Amino acid sequence: MIAKDIFFKVLSNSNEDGVKARTGLLKTAHSEIETPVFMPVGTLGTVKAIEQRELHEFDTRIILGNTYHLFLRPGIEVMENAAGLHNFMNWNKSILTDSGGFQFFSLSKLNKNSEDGVEFSSHLNGDKFFFTPEKVIDIQRIIGSDIMMPLDECLPSPSEKKVVEKSIALTYRWEKRCFEHYENTKEKYGHSQKLFSINQGSIFPDLRKRSIEGLTEIDFDGHAIGGLAVGEANNIMYDIVDHSTDYLPKEKPRYLMGVGTPVDLLECVERGIDMFDCVMPTRNARHGRLFTTTGEVNLKSSAIKNNFNSPDEECKTYTSVNFSLAYLRHLFISNEILGFQLASIHNIGFYLNLMKNIRESINENKFKEFKQQFLNKYLKNKIDKKLNLQKGI
Amino acid sequence: MIAKDIFFKVLSNSNEDGVKARTGLLKTAHSEIETPVFMPVGTLGTVKAIEQRELHEFDTRIILGNTYHLFLRPGIEVMENAAGLHNFMNWNKSILTDSGGFQFFSLSKLNKNSEDGVEFSSHLNGDKFFFTPEKVIDIQRIIGSDIMMPLDECLPSPSEKKVVEKSIALTYRWEKRCFEHYENTKEKYGHSQKLFSINQGSIFPDLRKRSIEGLTEIDFDGHAIGGLAVGEANNIMYDIVDHSTDYLPKEKPRYLMGVGTPVDLLECVERGIDMFDCVMPTRNARHGRLFTTTGEVNLKSSAIKNNFNSPDEECKTYTSVNFSLAYLRHLFISNEILGFQLASIHNIGFYLNLMKNIRESINENKFKEFKQQFLNKYLKNKIDKKLNLQKGI
Repeated sequence: MIAKDIFFKVLSNSNEDGVKARTGLLKTAHSEIETPVFMPVGTLGTVKAIEQRELHEFDTRIILGNTYHLFLRPGIEVMENAAGLHNFMNWNKSILTDSGGFQFFSLSKLNKNSEDGVEFSSHLNGDKFFFTPEKVIDIQRIIGSDIMMPLDECLPSPSEKKVVEKSIALTYRWEKRCFEHYENTKEKYGHSQKLFSINQGSIFPDLRKRSIEGLTEIDFDGHAIGGLAVGEANNIMYDIVDHSTDYLPKEKPRYLMGVGTPVDLLECVERGIDMFDCVMPTRNARHGRLFTTTGEVNLKSSAIKNNFNSPDEECKTYTSVNFSLAYLRHLFISNEILGFQLASIHNIGFYLNLMKNIRESINENKFKEFKQQFLNKYLKNKIDKKLNLQKGI
Repeated sequence: MIAKDIFFKVLSNSNEDGVKARTGLLKTAHSEIETPVFMPVGTLGTVKAIEQRELHEFDTRIILGNTYHLFLRPGIEVMENAAGLHNFMNWNKSILTDSGGFQFFSLSKLNKNSEDGVEFSSHLNGDKFFFTPEKVIDIQRIIGSDIMMPLDECLPSPSEKKVVEKSIALTYRWEKRCFEHYENTKEKYGHSQKLFSINQGSIFPDLRKRSIEGLTEIDFDGHAIGGLAVGEANNIMYDIVDHSTDYLPKEKPRYLMGVGTPVDLLECVERGIDMFDCVMPTRNARHGRLFTTTGEVNLKSSAIKNNFNSPDEECKTYTSVNFSLAYLRHLFISNEILGFQLASIHNIGFYLNLMKNIRESINENKFKEFKQQFLNKYLKNKIDKKLNLQKGI
């Protein structure tokens, strides 16, 4: 428990050598969130193929919504009439919304950034819209998310340093305008809303530092690292994260956007990240890829056609306790919706369980041991396969 | 409760004028099933978009599986290795399997019936197979369903009387062979399996009578009416059902295959039917059509874009208690899997709740009153619309 008016508190710092991991508590109007936390992505007001009551089964305390997607569907009018996203989707825990910056970059057929904001065309029907930093805040006020994100510019990777340098300056000016507009507007539904910054700078350490130093001068409630996991090598991402957390204030939550694999989560918690989100557990689920304690499983593989074992003896979910690999394969081969449901349940359960174990290990100053044990099992099949290949087996 | 060795018992007969409705209890190795019952269709070992635990929420006691579909996927080898469908899909209540007769007729690109059986090609890849009446029993022994169906010939509607006459004779010979093979084989998994007959005869009362009289001479455990709801007018179907139940033995369960709408269920319970199955609640759900106490609702309609009411104030399901019409519409417009899930949950919940209310009304000799009340609400919007059209409103 932390005092009502405190938004974030670090609860423990790992005392292990070279481990910057910490546990903390985030407190919004809707829930208390133990960090490090993984936030399931609910793009359009639903974590795909998972029922809201199932999210509660995993003790999910916070999910994501996407401003860009929700602006297009159901639209701001419906959202306002519903008195916000919590009501609309009947979700009584926390919601973080991104600003749309990443979607303009990744989805929009045409987007044009200027000093004033972003002109973009809907990926659905080509309709044109213009988002200013202020408008992005206004929309998130209507969505009523507990944590809002400011408008930032996302660049493709790789980008030239000169381009990135100009871009982080624009991102800074946009986010400053977001903050000012945030300070000058009020929440619409009686619960308080927080605003984070998003730093950019691609894979250039000095630009990351500059972006962070600028943004942390403004009194944002937390700080996100954006523009990673967009194509750069894993070790470069880890280095940039490591470098960035050196400059991020210790007393505020640090959010690594759009990351990642279970291995990424471990590596980046170790480097001081408190919050994650990623479509991977749900998207992979819909493609028949299951995250399990002993590695990723391809649920369409003929190798499991007659395998009546649980997909995961260790991580207990509705799926792993009740259904066999052979049954899950059958569902995917037959294109049955239940396959998407069961795989999504397990993958989200697996991610949230991993974070819970990570938090416990940090509290006990056994993060390194836990990480090694986890990776030994998780990567074993992959490593065995590699060794067998090397041995010519 | 009924004695362990009794499979079916009529518990009460309506004493209302012209009402042939009755309640009963079906007892299989896996569950006691109160009749009249609606059996959700689980074609491929899953009631589409519904989790097994959700079926238990509705107190589902029996579901359907399809022999034809399960033979193709996952195939008989997997089914046998799994020790039957109950184990494979982790369903501990009853299962009824159809024989494939209807699928040969409706799905197969090419099927050729002869005295010996059916040659058909898979709708998936064109592979050719030959099913004899004996093979249909063998497969259902491997599936391990509680209630098996025999091979019958399904004709398109309309069919010439001469053709139908020849067909019911073939169906009789096939089903007799099924019964003999059933008597000469044993269950594989320790639990007893029952075998029903399926009478045919299209819309010809005298041929229906002849088909029933032949098949009821054989000691089947129950009797199904097949070949209806294939294009004939509703009132013709009701007449054939009424006519058929006059000849079906009172002491055995009567199953009307592939029927139907909520109105059909009421009309055919009134005419003495005990068991129903139909893809309608789940299929319509996936197309965004919701069954509610006040009629069918099109979940894609723009009319409900800002309607934040429950889709059904009276029939309480996870869906109707927790989500609004506007949210459901948003899910369908956005093609979200959760839309299929929530609509399927409500439609199956609605059907099973209707059957429960029907059983109670029969027990209280208030079936007619219940039916009238139900239809007044269920059809009101339709009738209002019609009246408004007539009045030129």
